[in-house]
Amino acid sequence: MNTLDDKILLSHGNGGLKMHELIEKVFLRHFKNTILEEQSDAAILPENHHRMAFTTDSFVIDPIFFPGGNIGKLAICGTVNDLAVSGAVPLYISASFIIEEGFPMSDLETIVSSMAREAKNAGVLVVTGDTKVVNKGKCDKIFINTAGIGSMSMKDLSISTAGNIKTGDVIIINGTMGDHGMAIMKARENFNFKLPVISDCASLNLMIREVLDRTEGVKFMRDPTRGGVATVLNELAKKKGVGIELDESALPVDQGVMAMCELLGFDPLYIANEGKVVIVADPDECDKILGIMKKNDLGIKSAVIGRIIDDYPGKVLLKTSSGGHRFIDLLTGDPLPRIC
Amino acid sequence: MNTLDDKILLSHGNGGLKMHELIEKVFLRHFKNTILEEQSDAAILPENHHRMAFTTDSFVIDPIFFPGGNIGKLAICGTVNDLAVSGAVPLYISASFIIEEGFPMSDLETIVSSMAREAKNAGVLVVTGDTKVVNKGKCDKIFINTAGIGSMSMKDLSISTAGNIKTGDVIIINGTMGDHGMAIMKARENFNFKLPVISDCASLNLMIREVLDRTEGVKFMRDPTRGGVATVLNELAKKKGVGIELDESALPVDQGVMAMCELLGFDPLYIANEGKVVIVADPDECDKILGIMKKNDLGIKSAVIGRIIDDYPGKVLLKTSSGGHRFIDLLTGDPLPRIC
Repeated sequence: MNTLDDKILLSHGNGGLKMHELIEKVFLRHFKNTILEEQSDAAILPENHHRMAFTTDSFVIDPIFFPGGNIGKLAICGTVNDLAVSGAVPLYISASFIIEEGFPMSDLETIVSSMAREAKNAGVLVVTGDTKVVNKGKCDKIFINTAGIGSMSMKDLSISTAGNIKTGDVIIINGTMGDHGMAIMKARENFNFKLPVISDCASLNLMIREVLDRTEGVKFMRDPTRGGVATVLNELAKKKGVGIELDESALPVDQGVMAMCELLGFDPLYIANEGKVVIVADPDECDKILGIMKKNDLGIKSAVIGRIIDDYPGKVLLKTSSGGHRFIDLLTGDPLPRIC
Repeated sequence: MNTLDDKILLSHGNGGLKMHELIEKVFLRHFKNTILEEQSDAAILPENHHRMAFTTDSFVIDPIFFPGGNIGKLAICGTVNDLAVSGAVPLYISASFIIEEGFPMSDLETIVSSMAREAKNAGVLVVTGDTKVVNKGKCDKIFINTAGIGSMSMKDLSISTAGNIKTGDVIIINGTMGDHGMAIMKARENFNFKLPVISDCASLNLMIREVLDRTEGVKFMRDPTRGGVATVLNELAKKKGVGIELDESALPVDQGVMAMCELLGFDPLYIANEGKVVIVADPDECDKILGIMKKNDLGIKSAVIGRIIDDYPGKVLLKTSSGGHRFIDLLTGDPLPRIC
């Protein structure tokens, strides 16, 4: 085979010689594992004697490189986290690329190597994939879809259905809110803004696994991506018919993110995170859960940010620092498209 | 909730109110099933005591509506077929949409309802999904990714690895070649061309299952999509180090497809199919396999098109109607981008 072209050509997506070259020299080289190397139409997975969790996400983030990560790292973290918050151990990932003709091969390599590194960190294998190339101008650089399969081999809490949430349960987050959304905003707009703002993009599965393995009392988990913490809590409040009170003074927000939000008129509660998990837990287990999370690099700033209340079923209420209260509703417009 | 907007807005992809509305009124309504309705970050699948097959494909076809199907039907068929040719029973599908701002809601509904209908035909459930909306001009109308999970509950032939292919084995196809690619070409270019040319887009899993359940001797299967039959057979010849001889007079080609190919200088062997399977089988089982396939609506024109030969290992040879021979190589350029 020849050396790799320095730009993506339409023929890299046609099923022929160039596509084979791209698969061999970029995808197989970085994602190297025996299942993927079979190069069948479908990956055949080893037997697993548990129920499986299955999820998918497409990533269309702009810009594709940002402080704290890139579209490839994000595509692994996002799918790993969706599985982890469902109570599954993430195992297998598919990776499907839609690439604009003319996209630099070196950028693709950087993205794919980030994916491979993040998959290794998270303990998952990329086992199957697909590549499509579209003519210049028909997509914006590169879109990546990842689907993931996890094993429900941990405690069989039906976390996703939030079975037994009750008044007094605490709401925990593993750190500052809105870092990802504001980092993307900053990278996109090229603000002249001194404070560093870095995406929290990270795979949370190992921390979550430790919490679930070593504690009881976790009742619900969700990663607050698009729409932020406010959206996750609104969905929960509506679905379970409970009230939720947040304590403004307890909400962890990074200094740079807060400054950007104030400047631009955003509320960090609505801004996307990519390395955060919101946990609803029994108050009796709260200290133990927080203890485990704070020992993890991804949970150093873990905090209790609110609780389930009797009043205002279906609503999320913010107790402001000044002692007042206001409702936190579902997002209506879209202040920040393409942040993931 | 309000009535559905008539065009896709950026806010249909932001995780907030509009996105919930779109999920409820379009995706859940059409894909209705108890697993999807959980609306968790990941779908939790029932226990399965077999090995699983896992595949993914992104669809970027242009035009999105074409004679014989649309991008949605194709997205289901493509993933179902990838599982089926791997020897798996397709069970669960994920559906992820990247939609251009301003896309007509009625077109989305048509596409989603086609997907739901095809999923029902093929006996698979759409259990998880994702929606992203990008600004106008940042993608071409709509791209769809489907990933699929199947159960290796049929005979445990490692079909994908084509274990024991040997000289004399027959090569079977279930009908005419190149229908999909030429139908797309015709739809795209708006040729003034009288003969109908219709995509073969179809889910082959039920026919394949019958063949595998009722016969022995299938050694390899692959759906000849991008790159066509020539590409599948070249991959096989190279991977297994065997020679393949095709008989030109036996190749089934629709009259309209042949006329278009002649007009445009294409070879139907290289044109994409979306409802075809190439089977390599023991010659002793050939009649039985053909018998089953010909009784199926999707296999009426099934034919033996060639055989495995001793000579020319790694090569595909065409015995022409005039008695000559020529090599059929891997595709190099891309005559037809975005046909799937």
